[in-house]
Amino acid sequence: MKSLGAKPMLFPLPVLMVATYSEDGSVNVMNAAWGGIYDDDKVVLALSPGHKTSANIRARRAFTLSVADKAHMTEADYFGIATGNKSTDKFAKSGLTAEKSSKVDAPVVTDFPITVECEVTDLIEEPETLHVIGRIKDVLVKDEILDDKGKVDITKAGALIYDTFSSSYYTIGEKAGRAFHEGAALMKK
Amino acid sequence: MKSLGAKPMLFPLPVLMVATYSEDGSVNVMNAAWGGIYDDDKVVLALSPGHKTSANIRARRAFTLSVADKAHMTEADYFGIATGNKSTDKFAKSGLTAEKSSKVDAPVVTDFPITVECEVTDLIEEPETLHVIGRIKDVLVKDEILDDKGKVDITKAGALIYDTFSSSYYTIGEKAGRAFHEGAALMKK
Repeated sequence: MKSLGAKPMLFPLPVLMVATYSEDGSVNVMNAAWGGIYDDDKVVLALSPGHKTSANIRARRAFTLSVADKAHMTEADYFGIATGNKSTDKFAKSGLTAEKSSKVDAPVVTDFPITVECEVTDLIEEPETLHVIGRIKDVLVKDEILDDKGKVDITKAGALIYDTFSSSYYTIGEKAGRAFHEGAALMKK
Repeated sequence: MKSLGAKPMLFPLPVLMVATYSEDGSVNVMNAAWGGIYDDDKVVLALSPGHKTSANIRARRAFTLSVADKAHMTEADYFGIATGNKSTDKFAKSGLTAEKSSKVDAPVVTDFPITVECEVTDLIEEPETLHVIGRIKDVLVKDEILDDKGKVDITKAGALIYDTFSSSYYTIGEKAGRAFHEGAALMKK
C-alpha cells in the first residue's frame, strides 16, 4: 500500500453543473466535483466561498444540479475554467440553453440529461468553504435517456465521471452486477 | 423532460465500504452510496442512525472508506445486504482481510484498491439520518493500481460505480477527456 497523504481523493466523483441566477437575472453555471446525496431528499455541495455561484446561492437560496454528459464535455469543462465573477456572459458564450425551473428560483440547463432542482435549507460558512445543503424538489430527465418502460437507462446518458487522481473525465463501461443481489450467496454461508 | 419527483438521484454515486470496529474489537463493514468529499481534508457520509456502523462511529469516532472493486463485488454487495446488528461474524463470513489503521481507530480492508482513513469531526443526528463529517488523515492505495511513475491509474483499480436509477454496479469505460483542458477553446471566444 502506498500512502498519498491527507488529500480529498475518492472515486467516483461526479461532474455536477451547478446552475444559479445572478442578481441581473443572467444564468451562471459552474462545474463542481464535491457534492452528493445528503439525505433521502437532500444534496450536499462544497464550494469556494468567493465563487459567483456561492453569492448567487446565498441571495436566491436555490440552485439546480445537472449531470454533465460527454456530448457537452467542452461546455462542462469550460464552466470549470471560466469564472462568473469576471464574465457576465459566461453562460451565453457556452451556447447552451436554460429555462426557468418551475420548482425553484434557478435555471435548468436543458442540454444535460439529468437535473436535480434544489432549494437551500442550510448554508454552513467556513473560511475556505461554503457547505450547501439543498432540499430536492424534483429530478428531471431527458426523454432520450429513458428505456421503453420509461425508466432511466444510464447507458444512454453519456454521463461524465470525474477521476480526481488524473484530473480526467470518463464515461461508464460495462454493467458489472446488480445491487442487493450479487452478495446473496454469502448470506447463506 | 420527464419529472421523477423528489428522489435522491444523482450520477455517479460511489460504492463506499465503511469500515469500523465494534465494541468487541471485531471488524464491521457496510456498503454506502451517500457520501463524498466535504472539504479539502474532509468527507461526508449519510447513514441510517440504527446501523451497527453508526453505533461504532459514535463510540470510536473513526472509520475508513474504501472504494469497492469489481474483483470483490460479491463481498461489497453482501456488506450492503447483511446487517452488523444481527451477525457479529458478518465480516468474517466475507473472507476479506483487515488490518488496524496506523492513523485512526478503525480497520483498513486490505483487499480494496483505495482506502481513506478518517477521524470524526462532527456528527449531526437527525431522526432518519446520521450525518458524519470525517477528517481525512491519509489515503492508501494498492501498489497494483499505480502507473510506472507511481501515480494512481484508475483504469487499473476496477472501481465500482453505483447507478441508483437501476440499482446496478458499473465500472468505468473509456477516458473522455482532460479536466481544465477540454473547455479551453471556449475561453477564447
